[in-house]
Amino acid sequence: MSSTRDIDKLIEMMARLPGLGPRSARRAVLQMIRKRGQLLAPLADQMAKVAASARECLNCGNIGTEDVCDICLSEKRATGEICVVQDVSDLWAMERGGAFSGRYHVLGGTLSALDDIGPEDIRIPQLVARINNEGVTEVILALNATVDGQTTAHYIADQLEGRVRITSLAQGVPIGGELDYLDDGTISAALKARRSI
Amino acid sequence: MSSTRDIDKLIEMMARLPGLGPRSARRAVLQMIRKRGQLLAPLADQMAKVAASARECLNCGNIGTEDVCDICLSEKRATGEICVVQDVSDLWAMERGGAFSGRYHVLGGTLSALDDIGPEDIRIPQLVARINNEGVTEVILALNATVDGQTTAHYIADQLEGRVRITSLAQGVPIGGELDYLDDGTISAALKARRSI
Ligand SMILES: [Zn+2]
Ligand SMILES: [Zn+2]
Repeated sequence: MSSTRDIDKLIEMMARLPGLGPRSARRAVLQMIRKRGQLLAPLADQMAKVAASARECLNCGNIGTEDVCDICLSEKRATGEICVVQDVSDLWAMERGGAFSGRYHVLGGTLSALDDIGPEDIRIPQLVARINNEGVTEVILALNATVDGQTTAHYIADQLEGRVRITSLAQGVPIGGELDYLDDGTISAALKARRSI
Repeated sequence: MSSTRDIDKLIEMMARLPGLGPRSARRAVLQMIRKRGQLLAPLADQMAKVAASARECLNCGNIGTEDVCDICLSEKRATGEICVVQDVSDLWAMERGGAFSGRYHVLGGTLSALDDIGPEDIRIPQLVARINNEGVTEVILALNATVDGQTTAHYIADQLEGRVRITSLAQGVPIGGELDYLDDGTISAALKARRSI
């Protein structure tokens, strides 16, 4: 069926996105085609716009549309606090909670001897450099309560010991839990009840 | 956060697709941005291509990229059999089954007194016209085993009585079941065991 090849290809591409399989990709594409004027064409435009402009913040690793992200540029966010997270999705989860007013440092992963991921692979040297550059007084380790997350937290705490206050999210983060799956209220509560390591 | 507005807008648009919610839209967009060269830009291109070319077949209601779809254009599919389905997703499900070699007629809905949907709203006059035009000998009613689907099937059977052989999918379609959720083997079996009404 040569003339439907473009539609089949779109379904295949959609099916590769996380959370979508072949069936939901077919349903989504059919829905988009039915509303191609209001839905498919604007979505294509928006994707092209984001594909052309999205990039990682050179300072913190957050995703934005400029070399340095809004949060790093905002003087209001220069509170002396840096919240260290594993992924941008965790940063988004923190921002939805709305309880944190400082800046972030996105590692993009965790230390892992098994996968040969060392400190320089997850932007730890950049974090250490930011402590002086930005007059940081507190580093909040908001890493997942997994083995790799906690190993990484301990490593960072060792590196920064004696230079800044180091805290971690405490109350409310379940054992083995991932930040992005928590409700916003839980994240706020965990932030407020943070403790020194 | 003005510079992430484009990313937020993309997430909102993705979240409106069937099968995706806010969380899966965020994960999908994050994944697309991480792989923006291989994933986001090509997906945007493909969507734009489909948005510009996708249309309903003027003959059968199938979706394709020309005024008349591949199946209607193919002489191989002129078997004298027309399979009547509710939606394009059902046509796709039949094609995946691979057991049907004739043509289709996509109603785009079912009769519904409640919603004031009559025969002319679901392309039934066009189906009647095709019986003569295309030398049709058998109409296979492959409608969902729901009340509205069966009401529609009976109405069409009444309209065509005495003019062609009328059959329906039989064995294998569960009561209340929808075609698009059946596995391909079940659809093939139901087609092979079809019975006269
Ligand atoms: Zn930044
Ligand atoms: Zn057609």
